[in-house]
Amino acid sequence: MRTSPSATNAGAGLKSQRPTIKDVAAHAGVSLKTVSRVVNEEAGVKASTRKAVLASIGVLGFRRNAAAAALRQGQTSTIGLVVKDISEPFQSSIAHAVESVASSRGAHLFAASSADDAGRERQLASSLSSRQVDGLIIIPSSENHSYLAQEIASGLAVVFLDCPAEGVDADTVLSDNRVGARKGVEHLIDHGHRRISYIGESATFYTAVERFEGYREALERHGIGVDPDLVMLGNADPERIRSRLLKMQNLSSPPTALFTGNSVSTLATLRVLGTTPLKVAHVAFDDFELFDLLTPGITVVAQDPAGLGTAAAELLFQRIAGDTGSARTIQLHTRLIQRGSGELTPEEL
Amino acid sequence: MRTSPSATNAGAGLKSQRPTIKDVAAHAGVSLKTVSRVVNEEAGVKASTRKAVLASIGVLGFRRNAAAAALRQGQTSTIGLVVKDISEPFQSSIAHAVESVASSRGAHLFAASSADDAGRERQLASSLSSRQVDGLIIIPSSENHSYLAQEIASGLAVVFLDCPAEGVDADTVLSDNRVGARKGVEHLIDHGHRRISYIGESATFYTAVERFEGYREALERHGIGVDPDLVMLGNADPERIRSRLLKMQNLSSPPTALFTGNSVSTLATLRVLGTTPLKVAHVAFDDFELFDLLTPGITVVAQDPAGLGTAAAELLFQRIAGDTGSARTIQLHTRLIQRGSGELTPEEL
Repeated sequence: MRTSPSATNAGAGLKSQRPTIKDVAAHAGVSLKTVSRVVNEEAGVKASTRKAVLASIGVLGFRRNAAAAALRQGQTSTIGLVVKDISEPFQSSIAHAVESVASSRGAHLFAASSADDAGRERQLASSLSSRQVDGLIIIPSSENHSYLAQEIASGLAVVFLDCPAEGVDADTVLSDNRVGARKGVEHLIDHGHRRISYIGESATFYTAVERFEGYREALERHGIGVDPDLVMLGNADPERIRSRLLKMQNLSSPPTALFTGNSVSTLATLRVLGTTPLKVAHVAFDDFELFDLLTPGITVVAQDPAGLGTAAAELLFQRIAGDTGSARTIQLHTRLIQRGSGELTPEEL
Repeated sequence: MRTSPSATNAGAGLKSQRPTIKDVAAHAGVSLKTVSRVVNEEAGVKASTRKAVLASIGVLGFRRNAAAAALRQGQTSTIGLVVKDISEPFQSSIAHAVESVASSRGAHLFAASSADDAGRERQLASSLSSRQVDGLIIIPSSENHSYLAQEIASGLAVVFLDCPAEGVDADTVLSDNRVGARKGVEHLIDHGHRRISYIGESATFYTAVERFEGYREALERHGIGVDPDLVMLGNADPERIRSRLLKMQNLSSPPTALFTGNSVSTLATLRVLGTTPLKVAHVAFDDFELFDLLTPGITVVAQDPAGLGTAAAELLFQRIAGDTGSARTIQLHTRLIQRGSGELTPEEL
């Protein structure tokens, strides 16, 4: 998984091949004002001129609506956001932040959900692009983004968020998932725990791999081996978690602490923990509304979804405005928030 | 505020004025196949024919991209959703449900947030419409939707969600806000409370009016007057709520119960209640993740966001498919979920 910036530029390395109003005027041999009149359906244009302009708009690459909209609305730009699941609070907070940046620049945002399906991500990106968005922010489901190479080459600005692109060299905004998870697990080690269970997603995609690696690194730094009996990856079904927790409890050396690697696992674990006799300290990756009001409050490694969305949107608008610098990766730091559940020592359980 | 269906049809009463591929073929005097070839940039079309087709596509009303997309993608339809704030869980759950229905029909959904700004809602609806969506679902911020009359007349399917349209006769999907609030307050009355505070939004828009009316009706049915000292509307700033709660506590007859009218008020109230000596039973309008894990669990009047989104999307696709029946209003029932906070009697506080 590539996370370092590289030399070629993603957003704007090649001259944009998207036709502008100027191109239309030049192609039709008329003034900008005339193109504007035709597009806005204003009077004062001869029928033959009108026809020529419409034909030029067509010939230059099926982008007339974008031109029309830009002229009609005074250059309102539009950006697209493809998320995996808009009902997931982390992603809807990102969408809100992107929307705020777009709004502050007088631009519109259209958001679409891929349902974590690579094919659907591809369709949505292509559908948004064919509807003349000026830029795209993608939270990837797909593992290969070479399908976007042509659009990027022809001037579409694209920023990847949460997970780096594969197969194209593009701007990327990430959380320091690995460092964050490592710090969360080390926080438990610092409070005297050595039997620390990990409950999270299967390590089949970027953020899941990084967070599990952070767990592994934390244990390794303190001379603790990973015990497969304490690791539960995959489907966060509450019944499945409950049965695994009960098994862990029956180990000769049961866990005294839990690290949950994502919100879904955390919520499912919280729902079942109270129904088992297992007493554990707990640190969760990702914050969640009301974690502070639970008893005890849930200690978390918090990402900054607003910061991620803002950084991605600002980078995107920079590219749209013509920044042709090298592609870059921005990594936002996570933050440990202590609320009680992660500060319990084995003796206090 | 109109909530009853009426006789004229919203979605499809007039013949659609949107040009079809057939119109383009007729206008250019060529076959459907030729139009398709031009649009798909296939070989085998003479330059002059190509030019004529492109001109016809243009002349017929700036809809060429839609035609192109529909042909290229095998008639993939696209719908738009305008919400007020996508990061609000109620609305992001609705978006998720609409997305699921769209996905099951092979359609795409683009969602946009108006930030509760009427002008922005108008811009987004117009922007989505100009990008050839087949239908729009709108959670209104605007109080007048006559700006959509022409689009609706020319065949754009529109469904209003959460709040009825004003100024156009259109399909609408709502929760029974008034009945739900009334039942929630009556639940408190049934548990012996007569001094019941209401904390919610200013009654300046539909759902806020309906819920406050539900509160008023419940009290009235039990011969209890509305005491302005117990009513707090508007900005749900935690410090403002805290100071009002402290004032209520100092009344000669302080409240023994609270009804909070929306999620923002509920969360702010929960955050400050623990910092005041006020002990109250509590019923909240709208459910929220983790309310069941608080101590006590929060009793709620739950809307069904997934049901609302599904009903609106299904109605929209029915209209897109050609249903020209009268505009209708679908009202989904709310549900009281007892979790502890709303079942405390004045004696138990």
